[in-house]
Amino acid sequence: MNLKFKWIGFDADDTLWENESYFREAEEEFCKMLKDYATAEELTKALYDIEVKNIKYYGYGIKGFVLSMIETGMQITDGKLSGEVLEEIISLGKELLNKPVCLIDGVAEVLESLKYWGYKLVVVTKGDLLDQEKKLQRSGLEKYFHHIEIVSDKQEENYQKLLNHLDVKPKDFLMVGNSLKSDVLPVLNIGGSAIHIPFHTTWIHEHVENVGELDHFCEIKSISEIHHILSV
Amino acid sequence: MNLKFKWIGFDADDTLWENESYFREAEEEFCKMLKDYATAEELTKALYDIEVKNIKYYGYGIKGFVLSMIETGMQITDGKLSGEVLEEIISLGKELLNKPVCLIDGVAEVLESLKYWGYKLVVVTKGDLLDQEKKLQRSGLEKYFHHIEIVSDKQEENYQKLLNHLDVKPKDFLMVGNSLKSDVLPVLNIGGSAIHIPFHTTWIHEHVENVGELDHFCEIKSISEIHHILSV
Repeated sequence: MNLKFKWIGFDADDTLWENESYFREAEEEFCKMLKDYATAEELTKALYDIEVKNIKYYGYGIKGFVLSMIETGMQITDGKLSGEVLEEIISLGKELLNKPVCLIDGVAEVLESLKYWGYKLVVVTKGDLLDQEKKLQRSGLEKYFHHIEIVSDKQEENYQKLLNHLDVKPKDFLMVGNSLKSDVLPVLNIGGSAIHIPFHTTWIHEHVENVGELDHFCEIKSISEIHHILSV
Repeated sequence: MNLKFKWIGFDADDTLWENESYFREAEEEFCKMLKDYATAEELTKALYDIEVKNIKYYGYGIKGFVLSMIETGMQITDGKLSGEVLEEIISLGKELLNKPVCLIDGVAEVLESLKYWGYKLVVVTKGDLLDQEKKLQRSGLEKYFHHIEIVSDKQEENYQKLLNHLDVKPKDFLMVGNSLKSDVLPVLNIGGSAIHIPFHTTWIHEHVENVGELDHFCEIKSISEIHHILSV
């Protein structure tokens, strides 16, 4: 692995702080609300299908998730979603938007030391703009970052635009995140390096088959292991 | 007015392209859907109150607008919003997200010539990230801009952050937009200049009382008049 990069990008949700578990809990709540109409499995599948279909309208984030839950509720109840459940879904969304930010073990220490060793740190995250900004503020991690980029998607072109904007060459850029699909593959494809830190829960939409042996890539179990790789 | 700035920021909605009129049309549709429960005036007022209350959760943009319409519908029908109306509201939101981008007269010519004369142009807009990105792509205006900044709000600190990030001093920055509250006052307050171009429709949340005589500020009727002011 090339260790000459000076710029390190960090995914936020499930890399710096917990996120997916909140969505999974919300999904469980949603399944309970509609348990008289369908099994949890059916509901989860219907919600996922509608979420994916709606990405082109809503992008990623909680507001789109809430709108997709409502649409799924309508579909499952054959257009007869009760006012009670509708209210519960909207409250569930607002609760999600107000969840405390729970940092993943070791994050603050790793960022502190990487900053100390002169790396330029960047957050690269997708989701709703206001929601991600508020999470960053609440996280107390803003001070470690040179730049924060909230993107509508994490495809090669989004990374390429970011690197152009920062005036950084791909070979000088390392991305760290929990999603092979969003944080690793597009960065490798444009000539950067990537570290994968799997999180215990991953949204099915982010799943990819085993990527096998790749150059400029490694997988670690915890963010603290970055120290060993970069030898800082 | 100081004419020495090299950087010009443009608001997007209702400065580069039509926007507010689409929201007003959607509001009219919404009032029609619920006309059996309340007058258009009552519905508009209730929706506005809920929108403003929800800004802290949803920020600005269409997804939050849709969620607020649903909440207003629930309130007005005493929790008995019909599935039919709920579906109509969700469709209305998706229609809004797919509206064609209708450029305001003179915009492309003005941007073309300002770019030609060496000004660095920046878009500064609030709203949903994906929605604003798609509008910019569809507008065909991306090529004129050095940088595009989609912000969650347009307060002094948001402008200050942007200028720091671009490494631009406030005295070298001119902002152009249709909202005194969002595009003019915060920029003047941090030491920049601003041009106000009123649009025929302004969301009530953006209204401010007459601002009187201000330094580093002028008002024009159409974007084409920028040429006279900058003498290009």
